[in-house]
Amino acid sequence: MAVRVDLNISLDGVAMPADPSPENPMGADWGRLVEDYTATRTFRERIFGDTSGAGTTGVDDRYGAAYFEGVGAEVMGAGMFGLHAFADDPEWRGWWGDAPPFRVPVFVLTHRRRAPIAFDNGTRFEFVSATVTDTVHRAAAVAGGADVRIGGGVGVVRAALEADLVDRLHVAVRPIVLGRGTRLWDDLRDLDRRYSVTSEVAESGVVHVTFTR
Amino acid sequence: MAVRVDLNISLDGVAMPADPSPENPMGADWGRLVEDYTATRTFRERIFGDTSGAGTTGVDDRYGAAYFEGVGAEVMGAGMFGLHAFADDPEWRGWWGDAPPFRVPVFVLTHRRRAPIAFDNGTRFEFVSATVTDTVHRAAAVAGGADVRIGGGVGVVRAALEADLVDRLHVAVRPIVLGRGTRLWDDLRDLDRRYSVTSEVAESGVVHVTFTR
Repeated sequence: MAVRVDLNISLDGVAMPADPSPENPMGADWGRLVEDYTATRTFRERIFGDTSGAGTTGVDDRYGAAYFEGVGAEVMGAGMFGLHAFADDPEWRGWWGDAPPFRVPVFVLTHRRRAPIAFDNGTRFEFVSATVTDTVHRAAAVAGGADVRIGGGVGVVRAALEADLVDRLHVAVRPIVLGRGTRLWDDLRDLDRRYSVTSEVAESGVVHVTFTR
Repeated sequence: MAVRVDLNISLDGVAMPADPSPENPMGADWGRLVEDYTATRTFRERIFGDTSGAGTTGVDDRYGAAYFEGVGAEVMGAGMFGLHAFADDPEWRGWWGDAPPFRVPVFVLTHRRRAPIAFDNGTRFEFVSATVTDTVHRAAAVAGGADVRIGGGVGVVRAALEADLVDRLHVAVRPIVLGRGTRLWDDLRDLDRRYSVTSEVAESGVVHVTFTR
């Protein structure tokens, strides 16, 4: 069992663009940040339900496919689930429609009380008011020996890294400079000393950097 | 004629480590930041005068050799020359001993008046109180059609990028997280839109990112 994280960041380390709005709840730069990831065949199939086989099939797609493999449970923050953007909507069921791509138990960190939401494909959102550490342990207990993924957002990931919970961190660095937003690396001095670090450049120009221990 | 910049940065974008001291005028982390560059055969030969052929010869060394090719004049800040660390020493002649590796005219930006210093190998330091833009133009005028390099430090490089003076920016990204120091990318939003960006991973794990226009 490993605890895994995958993030898309800019060259200047921005993982969460600035200025979320109702029109762009992840920030106006989100599309640019994840552009090469959303172009992959895996993303198009798994997230958009596009079974035509369209999409890129190179290095980015290999990481995209690995993202979904071997995960038995997921932990995410309230913002990633959409509870900040849709705080007043008790019927909000996440961004992902009727078939969220997780297909495993997902623990959403929030201080709000909400009833669990289950989907036919195995995705089940459960809302917990607990620390990241306790929630990762709880996710591990239901993951059946498979990995736990911490999906994001960047605040939850940073808390998990600071708590030394993460066994594998993969960042897809898109070579753009955003200059605004929440950076992944701040206050994580010497993070690399706890891991082996390897890098690989995709056809798209994205640099995939993987921290493994 | 192109204006070129080469910098070593950490994964979190630090180009100048924090806390310079008399013992570590470039900051205590400087050695870690440039470790793979200083291990190259080119660096050992050109900077240390080591003609034994020792040193790495892979991708890092290729960039190291390119650093010295085709440069007709250089511009650097006072800190890179050492005027901050040795502000009270009128005899200070730079960090590089009797044969500085530049071998071309070097314009050092400082408000202090100092007489030029010439070396037998063609290096000539001239101290100028002027803007980065004016100094780059002055360097171009003496470069004989060859390139102008802006050597650093990061403050001078950032000013040159903001003034859109730079034709080629090469950053060697060492996969370490320093967390402290002066970052290259801050306030350079959309820098990438003015360039083509390519990346290459060295045997050492350093990611070489090149902005070209």
